[in-house]
Amino acid sequence: MSDGHGLFDGVLAAGPVAELVGDRAWVQAMLDFEGALASAAAAAGAIPDEAAVAIESCCRAEDYDIGALGADAVRIGNPAGPLVRALTERVAPEAAAYVHLGATSQDVIDTAAMVVTARALAALHADLRTCATRLAQLAEEHAGTVMAGRSLLQQAPPVTFGRTAAGWLGGIVAALDRIDLIRRERLAVQFGGAVGTLSSLRGNGIPVLSELARRLGLVEPVLPWHTERSRIAEIAGTLGQTCGAVAKIARDITLLAQTEIGEVSEQGPPGSGGSSTMPHKRNPVAAVLAAGSAAQAPGLVATLLSAGAHEHQRAAGSWHAEWRPLVELLRSTGSSVHWLRVCLERLQVDPQRMRVNLDSTGGQLLAEHVAIELTSVSHGAVGRQEASDLVAVCCRAAGPDDLADVLAADAVVGKFLNRKRIGELLEPAGYLGSTDEFIRRALNDWQSRL
Amino acid sequence: MSDGHGLFDGVLAAGPVAELVGDRAWVQAMLDFEGALASAAAAAGAIPDEAAVAIESCCRAEDYDIGALGADAVRIGNPAGPLVRALTERVAPEAAAYVHLGATSQDVIDTAAMVVTARALAALHADLRTCATRLAQLAEEHAGTVMAGRSLLQQAPPVTFGRTAAGWLGGIVAALDRIDLIRRERLAVQFGGAVGTLSSLRGNGIPVLSELARRLGLVEPVLPWHTERSRIAEIAGTLGQTCGAVAKIARDITLLAQTEIGEVSEQGPPGSGGSSTMPHKRNPVAAVLAAGSAAQAPGLVATLLSAGAHEHQRAAGSWHAEWRPLVELLRSTGSSVHWLRVCLERLQVDPQRMRVNLDSTGGQLLAEHVAIELTSVSHGAVGRQEASDLVAVCCRAAGPDDLADVLAADAVVGKFLNRKRIGELLEPAGYLGSTDEFIRRALNDWQSRL
Amino acid sequence: MSDGHGLFDGVLAAGPVAELVGDRAWVQAMLDFEGALASAAAAAGAIPDEAAVAIESCCRAEDYDIGALGADAVRIGNPAGPLVRALTERVAPEAAAYVHLGATSQDVIDTAAMVVTARALAALHADLRTCATRLAQLAEEHAGTVMAGRSLLQQAPPVTFGRTAAGWLGGIVAALDRIDLIRRERLAVQFGGAVGTLSSLRGNGIPVLSELARRLGLVEPVLPWHTERSRIAEIAGTLGQTCGAVAKIARDITLLAQTEIGEVSEQGPPGSGGSSTMPHKRNPVAAVLAAGSAAQAPGLVATLLSAGAHEHQRAAGSWHAEWRPLVELLRSTGSSVHWLRVCLERLQVDPQRMRVNLDSTGGQLLAEHVAIELTSVSHGAVGRQEASDLVAVCCRAAGPDDLADVLAADAVVGKFLNRKRIGELLEPAGYLGSTDEFIRRALNDWQSRL
Amino acid sequence: MSDGHGLFDGVLAAGPVAELVGDRAWVQAMLDFEGALASAAAAAGAIPDEAAVAIESCCRAEDYDIGALGADAVRIGNPAGPLVRALTERVAPEAAAYVHLGATSQDVIDTAAMVVTARALAALHADLRTCATRLAQLAEEHAGTVMAGRSLLQQAPPVTFGRTAAGWLGGIVAALDRIDLIRRERLAVQFGGAVGTLSSLRGNGIPVLSELARRLGLVEPVLPWHTERSRIAEIAGTLGQTCGAVAKIARDITLLAQTEIGEVSEQGPPGSGGSSTMPHKRNPVAAVLAAGSAAQAPGLVATLLSAGAHEHQRAAGSWHAEWRPLVELLRSTGSSVHWLRVCLERLQVDPQRMRVNLDSTGGQLLAEHVAIELTSVSHGAVGRQEASDLVAVCCRAAGPDDLADVLAADAVVGKFLNRKRIGELLEPAGYLGSTDEFIRRALNDWQSRL
Repeated sequence: MSDGHGLFDGVLAAGPVAELVGDRAWVQAMLDFEGALASAAAAAGAIPDEAAVAIESCCRAEDYDIGALGADAVRIGNPAGPLVRALTERVAPEAAAYVHLGATSQDVIDTAAMVVTARALAALHADLRTCATRLAQLAEEHAGTVMAGRSLLQQAPPVTFGRTAAGWLGGIVAALDRIDLIRRERLAVQFGGAVGTLSSLRGNGIPVLSELARRLGLVEPVLPWHTERSRIAEIAGTLGQTCGAVAKIARDITLLAQTEIGEVSEQGPPGSGGSSTMPHKRNPVAAVLAAGSAAQAPGLVATLLSAGAHEHQRAAGSWHAEWRPLVELLRSTGSSVHWLRVCLERLQVDPQRMRVNLDSTGGQLLAEHVAIELTSVSHGAVGRQEASDLVAVCCRAAGPDDLADVLAADAVVGKFLNRKRIGELLEPAGYLGSTDEFIRRALNDWQSRL
Repeated sequence: MSDGHGLFDGVLAAGPVAELVGDRAWVQAMLDFEGALASAAAAAGAIPDEAAVAIESCCRAEDYDIGALGADAVRIGNPAGPLVRALTERVAPEAAAYVHLGATSQDVIDTAAMVVTARALAALHADLRTCATRLAQLAEEHAGTVMAGRSLLQQAPPVTFGRTAAGWLGGIVAALDRIDLIRRERLAVQFGGAVGTLSSLRGNGIPVLSELARRLGLVEPVLPWHTERSRIAEIAGTLGQTCGAVAKIARDITLLAQTEIGEVSEQGPPGSGGSSTMPHKRNPVAAVLAAGSAAQAPGLVATLLSAGAHEHQRAAGSWHAEWRPLVELLRSTGSSVHWLRVCLERLQVDPQRMRVNLDSTGGQLLAEHVAIELTSVSHGAVGRQEASDLVAVCCRAAGPDDLADVLAADAVVGKFLNRKRIGELLEPAGYLGSTDEFIRRALNDWQSRL
Repeated sequence: MSDGHGLFDGVLAAGPVAELVGDRAWVQAMLDFEGALASAAAAAGAIPDEAAVAIESCCRAEDYDIGALGADAVRIGNPAGPLVRALTERVAPEAAAYVHLGATSQDVIDTAAMVVTARALAALHADLRTCATRLAQLAEEHAGTVMAGRSLLQQAPPVTFGRTAAGWLGGIVAALDRIDLIRRERLAVQFGGAVGTLSSLRGNGIPVLSELARRLGLVEPVLPWHTERSRIAEIAGTLGQTCGAVAKIARDITLLAQTEIGEVSEQGPPGSGGSSTMPHKRNPVAAVLAAGSAAQAPGLVATLLSAGAHEHQRAAGSWHAEWRPLVELLRSTGSSVHWLRVCLERLQVDPQRMRVNLDSTGGQLLAEHVAIELTSVSHGAVGRQEASDLVAVCCRAAGPDDLADVLAADAVVGKFLNRKRIGELLEPAGYLGSTDEFIRRALNDWQSRL
Repeated sequence: MSDGHGLFDGVLAAGPVAELVGDRAWVQAMLDFEGALASAAAAAGAIPDEAAVAIESCCRAEDYDIGALGADAVRIGNPAGPLVRALTERVAPEAAAYVHLGATSQDVIDTAAMVVTARALAALHADLRTCATRLAQLAEEHAGTVMAGRSLLQQAPPVTFGRTAAGWLGGIVAALDRIDLIRRERLAVQFGGAVGTLSSLRGNGIPVLSELARRLGLVEPVLPWHTERSRIAEIAGTLGQTCGAVAKIARDITLLAQTEIGEVSEQGPPGSGGSSTMPHKRNPVAAVLAAGSAAQAPGLVATLLSAGAHEHQRAAGSWHAEWRPLVELLRSTGSSVHWLRVCLERLQVDPQRMRVNLDSTGGQLLAEHVAIELTSVSHGAVGRQEASDLVAVCCRAAGPDDLADVLAADAVVGKFLNRKRIGELLEPAGYLGSTDEFIRRALNDWQSRL
């Protein structure tokens, strides 16, 4: 777990989250806990004010050697012990006795996990909002840009690109909602001492807990949650959901960008997405990396959920099992959202190509429209099934350009619909149903949250 | 996916949820959609009222052959088509044309999934509340029942069984919160037609959508969500979290019930949990089955999250990939919560055995208490670390019964603490910190939700 | 866990495996264990021959009530106890005492799991071989059918459809190899009694174990493996790998079948893959269901691996956690392979469309070929990078039909390559490298296994 | 993905594997590919010998800036391009044109993944063998050390600690077998060029492929496997299985080390496993970290399996999705095996405590033994069920010390068995069945592999 400068980190740990969940950030968060604990204890009268000041002044991560802390962690099995020892050595002797008062290793690391998560979610939230804003803009701008709908990767009745973007927006908004909830309600301080009773603080436990939460900007939990890991599960589920929303958009974009479809493309900076061997190529690199990053989530969520059964007051392995996947999940989600943002910034939409693809089946996508109208104008004389069958026969008989003519020439169809009307019915823009209204609803929903 | 009468269903698909997510329940939910759709369409003036009545009258699951529907599903790849066909055949000819109006297969199945989930979550919620009520009762009743805390499966300073139960309660309450949220906000009707535009309904789309949601008691979504699967992800995450909370409790109970620990046991009906070869045994069968059922969740959640990237307007496989794991996850969660409920009903607590175990290390669990007091009464003359080291030396020197004497005989310890005071300090009930307050907070939190 | 006649079973539990892993099959496998155990015990002189005969005669699954066994399983937590009781009641009184001799519930169920797996893998193997044979045929038949290669879903230099099929074959062959290994070495009988010592059989343990394995056609394990679950892990991994191989092929086929690409299609029976609203559609239903079924695997594998840490001599929940995912995994893999087989049977290849798509970029896919030749014939005077850059410039300058002309008109390119040679270099069939040889290798490799 | 010096790496990326899968190791492996490719191409006459020598001389990882490569990777989405560029800049100009000849980025990275895996598996194999040797030694040494068997965490009939260790050994041996298989057959070079046809090498493709494999000590694959990912799936499954075997042992050890059980303990170096607040504690830190590391595997395996469906000739995201989980999985497995080795080195067995626990139920674990003997010596006059019931009654009537007396006083039991014989039957060492033979089989099996 480095700070984002590794060989694969540029592509799979991209964006601001990586550094916010790196080792340096963890150490700082652990020190933030120790500093805030000292201050909270002083506020509660449990330790002298000067001791708190002395401790707080030693809580800068850059003063600590991460590698040494990590190496030293093998003795007790976590890096909190070594950090507390290093901090204690740094503070003035008269304050040393007040370091880490009443706390256990897990208090430090769990709280640090919450602080790190809070900072990472803030950055993630900002990136997601940028994505949402761009999607809302695309939805509005392309509300009337007709394109083929696609079902099972086969062309289907028309939609608009605005509707497509509005659908993408929906997933991002849902993710933002859950992230908001987590940030508001579930990022709680951990402070319980060895067994979650705060026994070594005697009567001071709750006041220190409350003040500690306040100082760290975290929720005060009803109880210490050393072995009640719902918070971790909820964070995991929320990040998993976020990656799912990203993956859906990335998948669609790579599909729409296929050479044979070409309805969107990523126009990145020179050299980006190109291929030395294939100069024509414009690889949707950002979408691909968004997908690759997002694909990490389900397995990591499963790991975190599987680790949920912490034994008794403090677990024998399940707690240790959470650290890496939590970091990886935050980082991968951050990376996927970053690449989605980049992808959406680069995205070029090609309405002309959409129209070409839409027309490539010679109007067959609108068959349903003709059938419905047939039933309607015949006042049911041509039943729904019959109309559908009739039109289907015409579709099969028609060549690439003459479906309207074939339909008009059909005895039954022609009886109720003339060639001109048929032409209108085969115009995709005339068969969009509630598309506009849906786009408007999505935009309103998004704007109501701003 | 049967209705819960299979070979392993008694143990792993126990409780009321299994039947609520069985095939029969699905068919009924699909028919509920079709019936409500007809009524909604009639209310919007899109179809005759009599047609709606005729259709609704044919929407009883017991009239349909599930095996035949399932077998017929191979043609288009889902059972909605066969059901619509079977329903259409059942209704009077003049109403037949109005069946399934404007809907696509996925509308039926996704809405049915929401209806099924709603019913399953209601049952799950009830079972979870029963568990919570029992846990609250245990927390209150045993607020003062001292037991050894345990960390990494080693004995640690004391807690009370009430505090343990309060911790368990916390996980259940968190799960209930998330289930409430899902039920209130996320169980939305699906209705979008072939590509999410409701094009075949022309102007009537939104009114029918609204009325349909109202009739089914589901949320009206901003947009059709055929390929925006946040709802599935959130349901999955919530069930995963729920199973985690159950698994934690089940794990603790199986550990506390170990022959060598014996602090709790399941007292089930005769024949339950026994062993023919080991008449002394009282297996915590319910806890074991709760754990076994809960263990299904993480992988199923991962499957549902992995299936999140639905292509374009309708997915090519990811949608189909959701059905089984959603059912399995609901069923397994239902089973795990059922067994937890049974386990808690059967649970016998043995305070005497708790005391025996607590005393088995001769007071060493209280070493920290003595050290803290030593620092305190010496006004820092004996520093925290020094006190800790001194007491540790005494602990190592002491036999099973004489720790107090050894401590009193120590030059430094004895200088500040007399034998009587040491005896008090080694009394577990005197070193519970904020235990009572934490229990009270947990109970208040729970009661505030009732 | 039904026997494959449920609502979603037609699509997601298709093929022969479903029934082979259904409840009836499990009961039969459990009875096979009991019958073989009796016979093995008789052969070892541990019970009378007549008792064995009497027991074996009662081991027909159709005589037992699965629902009752399942319901009764709640008492001890597994259905072996109820089955043994039911069997004991059925056999003549004088033989009753010899039923299940020396065995524990887990012996019955684990051995049944192996028997069920053996039968399921045999069917899976047969279906996979059919797939492999068809793929080998496609590889041979289309060895020279040129199509666009595709990288990141963008067109890339040419391949042939035969090479594509050979690649698909490789995944199937690898899966077959692993299944062979499992069948040959890892499907072992379970027989250890309560704690894996066969203590109740006194000296007869090992001879009965050996004979039992022989009679069931299973491997004799070195040790009872009640809590050593490598076998389950290996079966899981192998099925996961198999589903991955299927998913890859299914993904490619759905992509190649896209309306805009149309290089392959599924030609199923009438009504299959069609859409009432879109008569032109030919959905690749079988590929979609293969993908949907295969998508179950990763999560189920994770569940089985997570359940690997069985406590002591017999686990407290992890064992119970295996049953459903093992069955689901076998069934889903069976379903995915079944649908792949169906898909490959239905598969129509459209070489003409492949050629159209290949030509749609006006030869740009062959840019690399021209650049390489340029470097080669200029004897390095035009370096690799320079050649690549020159050709790239031409590609960007060229219209849809005149790349050869643009290249020929370039001062440098034209100096070394004339228009005719450029035309040859832009012919896809001339730039296939080792394609033929690779296809031959794949076919030889496959044939060597037959 | 750092090189193992991070904050949590000491505990969760312990052992030799971490560095072998770190960024530096990857860069070296990528350079090994480039060097070997140049040499292989020279051997095939495709490039000048001097060029190969020049290229090989620049293939030392320490000469490259990993951070810069990682940052530069964003342009094309992987670090191979930047590395090839950096390498090309380093080599003499006349050799530059021959760098990376015929290869694509994925050739470099996939081959590097195999080289890295080969080196990691060698280290893992060595650590596992050390574990196996220690387990074999424990199995032999404690073949007769009687302890309580445990089922569902309840005491059950006796086993020996040697039998327990032999069972643990079985899981390690199975893992070694699969690792051997992977190393022997599945670690194959990747070399196919842009679309797996080696087209740019013209006729030289296969000879270069063969020579490249030979030089790297990897298998020559039948086909390039850019989008046929069985190898990755098999590696994943094998590592998942290995972690399962470790997790089982670690779980058992933490359970046996519980304060109330105390049958084993870890005796680490001073300061290891201690607790400042609880001087009596001896936490089984190594076992806990083995468990925590092993718990990463199932989710990572699922991620790798989920990424299996690579599109066409080169995937749009699934390939990128593999890098992190493959590294994490190797590293976590390495860490878990390392900690298991450490744990086994530290393991102290307490036969006396085993005996105390065994006796704590007053012989009830042997009830089955008495019942069997009763049936046997009565020649069936007392049937199996009756005997079992009789003994059960006595068990319930007996106090902690007088089961033998109660049994002897029973009218029926006493008729067939005298007090002395009953005493013998209640001796655990007399009811071990085939324990010795099983241990011998396990040891023979292990020795036969050496």
